[in-house]
Amino acid sequence: MATLLKGKDVADALTAKMTDDVTALKARGVNPTLAILRVGERGDDLSYEKGAMKRAESVGVAVKNVVLPADVDQATLLSAVLDLNADKSVHGVLMFSPLPKHLDEKAIREVLAPEKDVDGITPGSLGSVFTGSGKGFAPCTAQACIEILDHYGIDLTGKRAVVVGRSLVIGKPVAQLLLAKNATVTTCHTRTVDMPSVTRGAEIIIVAAGKAGAVNADYVSAGQTVIDVGINVNEEGKLVGDADFASVEPIVDAITPVPGGVGSVTTCVLIKHVVYAAARA
Amino acid sequence: MATLLKGKDVADALTAKMTDDVTALKARGVNPTLAILRVGERGDDLSYEKGAMKRAESVGVAVKNVVLPADVDQATLLSAVLDLNADKSVHGVLMFSPLPKHLDEKAIREVLAPEKDVDGITPGSLGSVFTGSGKGFAPCTAQACIEILDHYGIDLTGKRAVVVGRSLVIGKPVAQLLLAKNATVTTCHTRTVDMPSVTRGAEIIIVAAGKAGAVNADYVSAGQTVIDVGINVNEEGKLVGDADFASVEPIVDAITPVPGGVGSVTTCVLIKHVVYAAARA
Repeated sequence: MATLLKGKDVADALTAKMTDDVTALKARGVNPTLAILRVGERGDDLSYEKGAMKRAESVGVAVKNVVLPADVDQATLLSAVLDLNADKSVHGVLMFSPLPKHLDEKAIREVLAPEKDVDGITPGSLGSVFTGSGKGFAPCTAQACIEILDHYGIDLTGKRAVVVGRSLVIGKPVAQLLLAKNATVTTCHTRTVDMPSVTRGAEIIIVAAGKAGAVNADYVSAGQTVIDVGINVNEEGKLVGDADFASVEPIVDAITPVPGGVGSVTTCVLIKHVVYAAARA
Repeated sequence: MATLLKGKDVADALTAKMTDDVTALKARGVNPTLAILRVGERGDDLSYEKGAMKRAESVGVAVKNVVLPADVDQATLLSAVLDLNADKSVHGVLMFSPLPKHLDEKAIREVLAPEKDVDGITPGSLGSVFTGSGKGFAPCTAQACIEILDHYGIDLTGKRAVVVGRSLVIGKPVAQLLLAKNATVTTCHTRTVDMPSVTRGAEIIIVAAGKAGAVNADYVSAGQTVIDVGINVNEEGKLVGDADFASVEPIVDAITPVPGGVGSVTTCVLIKHVVYAAARA
C-alpha cells in the first residue's frame, strides 16, 4: 500500500501559513488583493473562480472581480489589463483562458505585468522560471507539485526525477522547478523511445501527459513517488489522473490521488502567489 | 577510433549557406549589420571581436563598432544600447561581458531588444528559448552544439541526451534546444548522485561542466556521441575540454575535439543569427 499524498493536508498547511502572513501584512497596512478578470460565463471559469474566491476569503485576501462580456473587443480587454497593471491596490491578476476566439490571447498575455501574473501565464513569468530571476510566478499546477513534495518532506537534492510531458503549462516549468531543487531531471514526451525504461529508473515521477493511463504498472518500480497532474474523465464518467492508479499504487511508495491530489493545492498556490506579490510590492 | 566531429567542417558549411543568404538579402536592399559594443580593452573581448569581424566579413555582413571607455558611466552605456535598439540599420548587437564592476550589467541586459540580441544574453532571449516563442536567440555556444549535431546528421528524435551542467549560458538553453528537437533530455549537475550511471545510459552527451576532466572513461559507453563545450587550460598550458579526451575517445562513437570543436562554430552561429535577424526585420 502506497502512502497517499493527499492535497488537502498540503492545502491546510499552506492556508494556515498564509493566514498568518496576511495578518502580518494587514498590520503593516497592506491589504493583499487578487483581481479576477473573466471574459464571458464559461462553466470551467466560474467553477475555478468560485474555488479561488473561497480560498482567498479563507485567508483574508481580498478579491476584485472584473467581468467583461463574451463579445468584448480586444482594445477594451487590453485596457482592462493595463488598468490592473497600474492599480497599486491590486497585487495579483488571474485571467481565465482560453479567451473567446475573436481575441488575440497572446497579445494580452504579453501585456500583463509578470510581477502581478500570479497564475504564471505570461512569457515574462515563464521566462523567469527558466532564468530563476524571480520576477514572475510559476504556473500554479507546476508549483503545486513542488508544494506537495515539500510538505511531505521528500527532499529532491540529487534525486532522479522524471517529468512525463513537456507542455509550457506544466511539464516544462515543473522540470525547471525540480532542477532548482537540485534534482537530476529528465523530460519525457510522446517522442520518447521506451519510456517505461526511463521512468522506472526515477525516484520521483511527475505525470503530466494529459492522457488517462499514460503511466501504468510497466512504468513504475518499488520505492518511487508519483505525482499525478492529470485530470481526465473516464468512460464511466469518473475523474481519473494520467497514471493508472489501480495498477501503479500497489507498486510505488507514495502517490497523489485524483481527485484529491495536485488539483486540491492549485488554488492555494494561486493565493500564496498573491500574498507573496503583496509582500514584495 | 571515434569519429572526430570537427567544428571547421560545420563552420564552412554554415559560411557557404550564409554567404548565399546575405547575397539574396542584399539583392532585396537589406544590408545585414552587426553592432559590436565593447567597453574597455579586455584581451578576451578583443580576440573574440577579431574572430567575429573576420567571420562577418567573410560572408558579407557589415560590422559597426561601438567602443566605450572602461570607466563609462551607466547612463552613457544604457543610452548606447537604446540607440542600437532604435537604429534600423543595425540587425544584431553583440555586447561583451563581463562589464566592468561599476556597471549594472543585469540592467543593461534587460534593456537590449531580444530581437537584436544575437548573442542570447537578455532575459527575453533566454525566456524565448524556454517558451519557443522564437522572439530572441539562443546563446551561441548552446546553438553551436545543435549545429554540429545537425551537420553530422545525428538525428535527435527519441534519443536519450544528457546535458552535464545547468548554467544559463549553456546547460539550460542547450537542454531546451535538444527537447525542441524531440530528444529525451536529462540535466545533470554538481548535485547529481552517481553521474556516470546517468551519462552512460545516454546516446548523446553534452558536456558543459566548466571543468577539465569532468567526464572520463567511467562516464561513457560504446556508441555514444560526445559534444564537449568546455574550454580549459591544463597544467601543461594546453587547451583542453571538459571531457578527458584521451580516455573517452577510444570508447565512444563520435566526439568533438578541443580545440577545433564547438568553439570553432560559435562565431558562425553569431553571424547566422545576424543574417536571420536581418531577414526577419
